[in-house]
Amino acid sequence: MAKVGIVMGSDSDLPVMAKAADVLEELGISYEMAIISAHREPDVFYEYAKSAEQKGFKVIIAGAGMAAHLPGMCAAIFPMPVIGIPMHTTSLGGRDSLYSIVQMPSGIPVATVAINGGQNAGLLAAKILATSDGQLLQKLKAYTEQMKKQVQAKDAKLQETGYKLYGK
Amino acid sequence: MAKVGIVMGSDSDLPVMAKAADVLEELGISYEMAIISAHREPDVFYEYAKSAEQKGFKVIIAGAGMAAHLPGMCAAIFPMPVIGIPMHTTSLGGRDSLYSIVQMPSGIPVATVAINGGQNAGLLAAKILATSDGQLLQKLKAYTEQMKKQVQAKDAKLQETGYKLYGK
Amino acid sequence: MAKVGIVMGSDSDLPVMAKAADVLEELGISYEMAIISAHREPDVFYEYAKSAEQKGFKVIIAGAGMAAHLPGMCAAIFPMPVIGIPMHTTSLGGRDSLYSIVQMPSGIPVATVAINGGQNAGLLAAKILATSDGQLLQKLKAYTEQMKKQVQAKDAKLQETGYKLYGK
Amino acid sequence: MAKVGIVMGSDSDLPVMAKAADVLEELGISYEMAIISAHREPDVFYEYAKSAEQKGFKVIIAGAGMAAHLPGMCAAIFPMPVIGIPMHTTSLGGRDSLYSIVQMPSGIPVATVAINGGQNAGLLAAKILATSDGQLLQKLKAYTEQMKKQVQAKDAKLQETGYKLYGK
Amino acid sequence: MAKVGIVMGSDSDLPVMAKAADVLEELGISYEMAIISAHREPDVFYEYAKSAEQKGFKVIIAGAGMAAHLPGMCAAIFPMPVIGIPMHTTSLGGRDSLYSIVQMPSGIPVATVAINGGQNAGLLAAKILATSDGQLLQKLKAYTEQMKKQVQAKDAKLQETGYKLYGK
Amino acid sequence: MAKVGIVMGSDSDLPVMAKAADVLEELGISYEMAIISAHREPDVFYEYAKSAEQKGFKVIIAGAGMAAHLPGMCAAIFPMPVIGIPMHTTSLGGRDSLYSIVQMPSGIPVATVAINGGQNAGLLAAKILATSDGQLLQKLKAYTEQMKKQVQAKDAKLQETGYKLYGK
Amino acid sequence: MAKVGIVMGSDSDLPVMAKAADVLEELGISYEMAIISAHREPDVFYEYAKSAEQKGFKVIIAGAGMAAHLPGMCAAIFPMPVIGIPMHTTSLGGRDSLYSIVQMPSGIPVATVAINGGQNAGLLAAKILATSDGQLLQKLKAYTEQMKKQVQAKDAKLQETGYKLYGK
Amino acid sequence: MAKVGIVMGSDSDLPVMAKAADVLEELGISYEMAIISAHREPDVFYEYAKSAEQKGFKVIIAGAGMAAHLPGMCAAIFPMPVIGIPMHTTSLGGRDSLYSIVQMPSGIPVATVAINGGQNAGLLAAKILATSDGQLLQKLKAYTEQMKKQVQAKDAKLQETGYKLYGK
Repeated sequence: MAKVGIVMGSDSDLPVMAKAADVLEELGISYEMAIISAHREPDVFYEYAKSAEQKGFKVIIAGAGMAAHLPGMCAAIFPMPVIGIPMHTTSLGGRDSLYSIVQMPSGIPVATVAINGGQNAGLLAAKILATSDGQLLQKLKAYTEQMKKQVQAKDAKLQETGYKLYGK
Repeated sequence: MAKVGIVMGSDSDLPVMAKAADVLEELGISYEMAIISAHREPDVFYEYAKSAEQKGFKVIIAGAGMAAHLPGMCAAIFPMPVIGIPMHTTSLGGRDSLYSIVQMPSGIPVATVAINGGQNAGLLAAKILATSDGQLLQKLKAYTEQMKKQVQAKDAKLQETGYKLYGK
Repeated sequence: MAKVGIVMGSDSDLPVMAKAADVLEELGISYEMAIISAHREPDVFYEYAKSAEQKGFKVIIAGAGMAAHLPGMCAAIFPMPVIGIPMHTTSLGGRDSLYSIVQMPSGIPVATVAINGGQNAGLLAAKILATSDGQLLQKLKAYTEQMKKQVQAKDAKLQETGYKLYGK
Repeated sequence: MAKVGIVMGSDSDLPVMAKAADVLEELGISYEMAIISAHREPDVFYEYAKSAEQKGFKVIIAGAGMAAHLPGMCAAIFPMPVIGIPMHTTSLGGRDSLYSIVQMPSGIPVATVAINGGQNAGLLAAKILATSDGQLLQKLKAYTEQMKKQVQAKDAKLQETGYKLYGK
Repeated sequence: MAKVGIVMGSDSDLPVMAKAADVLEELGISYEMAIISAHREPDVFYEYAKSAEQKGFKVIIAGAGMAAHLPGMCAAIFPMPVIGIPMHTTSLGGRDSLYSIVQMPSGIPVATVAINGGQNAGLLAAKILATSDGQLLQKLKAYTEQMKKQVQAKDAKLQETGYKLYGK
Repeated sequence: MAKVGIVMGSDSDLPVMAKAADVLEELGISYEMAIISAHREPDVFYEYAKSAEQKGFKVIIAGAGMAAHLPGMCAAIFPMPVIGIPMHTTSLGGRDSLYSIVQMPSGIPVATVAINGGQNAGLLAAKILATSDGQLLQKLKAYTEQMKKQVQAKDAKLQETGYKLYGK
Repeated sequence: MAKVGIVMGSDSDLPVMAKAADVLEELGISYEMAIISAHREPDVFYEYAKSAEQKGFKVIIAGAGMAAHLPGMCAAIFPMPVIGIPMHTTSLGGRDSLYSIVQMPSGIPVATVAINGGQNAGLLAAKILATSDGQLLQKLKAYTEQMKKQVQAKDAKLQETGYKLYGK
Repeated sequence: MAKVGIVMGSDSDLPVMAKAADVLEELGISYEMAIISAHREPDVFYEYAKSAEQKGFKVIIAGAGMAAHLPGMCAAIFPMPVIGIPMHTTSLGGRDSLYSIVQMPSGIPVATVAINGGQNAGLLAAKILATSDGQLLQKLKAYTEQMKKQVQAKDAKLQETGYKLYGK
């Protein structure tokens, strides 16, 4: 039984959603990914959202762009946390997606991450599950430690090469 | 059988939605008004949207604020025109509502009017029905003529009193 | 006699307006397309808007960019629905076009769709005509069914290939 | 024969437009003020814009709010300068008015002033007329000198009272 | 041991943060509330964030306005979910708070809710805890059912009184 | 003696300013063009603005980007009309330039045109001069007639080829 | 000889600028305050900016609203740091002021603080002077310590009264 | 002992930060550059900010993008001036970075420069140091003189070649 559902309205969102899946894989968290449009197939969507709890999902990560209703409609039906990823858009830079996802009315929260923030959505799902999974929490701490080392390595390189030669 | 459904997610939207109803009443168009939240009662909402055609609705006017999903979700289910009214919001002035309603992805249009544009939503519904109702079209022309006369009366008053005394 | 007028202020808008025409063709709806600038040839424009009803138009689809006055001025003259398409713009991303079209004052609605939303404008025109044309309504339902199948096919492909190989 | 036409779409714009008239009066420039809506009475508007040159207008000052088409449509018809005043709006603060007026496409300029900038519109009209009227130019220089003295008087008061007592 | 930490940078944020606490109380979830400024007392803040896990916190709800760094800095230190509430601001309506909280770089997610979204922050914390607490999940479902009934009651009242008398 | 001064703060603005010069040349209006930075050489700038009237300028066209002070500072010194052209900018799309130019405080108007609106700035300068030059007014009318014919030619081409082959 | 010049374009900016002066007084830093408009009295302004170094100013704090040119023009002339305070504005919330001040082109920096950030401007001036004044640096540290204590006192009060009674 | 610390959260900010370093080198000001993430390595960051005074830093230049907390957190700890550089961002053009840096709450100023304003950050640091270093002040004046000559050379070239051949 997968613990996380990853759902997007269109396959154009896949590169961003893939980053969420990558994080889950790296941390050993089971997930299911689906392309389901709340607008183009509302019946399929409703069925998906209603059966999510039964399938064992503890968290849903939903990504959508423009007038992005998928995360909010998931949150209207699924009783556990829904993480929303606003997609970057050509004309409005993703403000339309962001406002459509984060500005949910009282009663129906969506845990919103940054525009195109696929990696952070995956990490947030992991953090949510880690509230009751000590082993996962250890993995997350190791992940954080790893990030720290990457920054330190970059700084060490800068100190060594100087900024004029860095990356050349 | 009512021809127009007017639906809003919260009774705080009522003052704006009432303007749409006022126009329909003035033009003799039957309508039904309801408070239904796509977020707080998704099942009730689905039932509403699915049965709308059977109830005889030709147009739905849906108003919502913030992450406003009601108009778009109506449009995902109801096969005839959905008119969306973005509500003014305190923090973002209604940009959140506007983007959540107008920026619908390809395939699912919502006929969007101005922020808080209740009167225009009513008129647009009437214009849609007037495409197959010559009598209603005449009423709309008379309505327009009336608006013209109101502006002319204001100008006449201005010419008479001068701008310094106008409205005093 | 064409049922829909498609009008744009500049041939640079043609790629977006063509999507509206494509939808109308697919659904078997007659239309006429014209390039008419409300700013550069106001007399030609007035004549166009005034004669539109007589030509048999039931709906006008008007596209324009920047300080986009064409849809609103059509709506000031033509008594039936006008659908406005805000064009994407380099500097403001289409916000200028969107605000110039959607924020119409009371009395003169323009049914506004998304920035560059040509396809949705065509669909909205069809939905308007479908309020009095049962056969067209059936075609629209089939069109919707088709969209649903396309999403389902993408999801089926994703389930089969997995996200890492999807589209590769 | 009046040299400046002042036109607004609604009497709600009058307080701002009055400031333009006040400046013209102070500088002894003849003007005519009218309430004419390009949207609600397009025929009246066309007649107004077309006859403006014959009436002797050298400049038109046009104010409008929201999807503000009046200044741009004036500029499409009247061959001399049109000054546009974007009105403040509740929801978008006047951005809608500003973009609808300033972002005119190539070929049809509107000389745009600040949101609610009635006084500056009057001054700009005067500066335009002063390009061929030496006496008016002298008056404008005196007006500028007056403004300078007002600022200096405020500074003198500040130096005298100190900021803690200023205005108390 | 409290399960949720509620922290704000200033007591001016208290009315919004109180709504989060109200929800937690209603659902029987233990919490601790504190006023700690990451800017004005960075040492106190660091100590708070570092000891949060030991204190038993599973979730932190952090609210802040303007250049709002408190939620993001909590997320940099605390390994479990941090929920960020962007405060409404006078000049920018809360966009500054929102962007400062939601646009976190990869690696450090903040689960962002709507501007001034105190109630939703409380509910999101509850949903997070409910991923491992079946009893709490039942309470949340009851809470949702309650919201549904409130909307239905409003609709019933509208059907009874009509929109003209509603609320009068 | 040149009638129009064209001034820009940087040679990166030249492509836009050149369009203004092109219009002036086409209409036979004398002008002088200069690169002068109000920020980098305030003394040179002051001298330029103060001597502009003596040099015979009737209008100044000033273009600038970002925190664009050149047009407004010209208007603070030169007593006749100053036309401001806001330059497009990478990060803010030209909003910074637009606000810095159009939002002038009371007393100091700048006649602002669209972002990157070089052609319109040239036309507006011509219209200003045409208020006292009947011959120039005739040229402007011919220019307008020319624009009209260009649009009509495009429409004729569209009618002939159909939209699918237009431009191919 | 005063070390800090505080200058504003209008006495309407005084309440914000007063906060800067209050901080300087509290920290024992000498200053001079003046109302000088770069737009309405450019000669007075130039004289002010040019003589500022001679008067002994080490820092200028300049506040302005709308198309706010005062800080940038000070920075073009005065060779030491200029701190800019963008004023809140009714229509654009201060975005116009902010962009006009912060988006300075390369070569002419303005140290910009928050919209209406009078207190921070005063503190920043003090921090600049403290780079060469150890005693002032100590005062600043004490000031910071004081702020910390104020937050701690608020938290203590919250812990004592609970959030429901806080402030009542 | 270096007088200026240059710090950035990611090596992707290096091209912008390098411009600050270039200016410091040109003016002979000692500096140290580091890559330190307040989010990914809060302990390293705290140590850096706390030891900055002891290391002899008089100014810190901090650059960051998106929800940019680095400059503000430096300012919370380091008692002398912190200059913030907001990085351009793909989706929001750098507004997120700008608001996260400039909108600091009272008590903790960050001297903010333009989006991607690396050069101006370097110059501002130099101006701050020049308040107590007459020799550096002379260098800055020479730098300014140099900028002036560059603009004058461009103008001379324009006068010589005319705008049509400029740059060709």
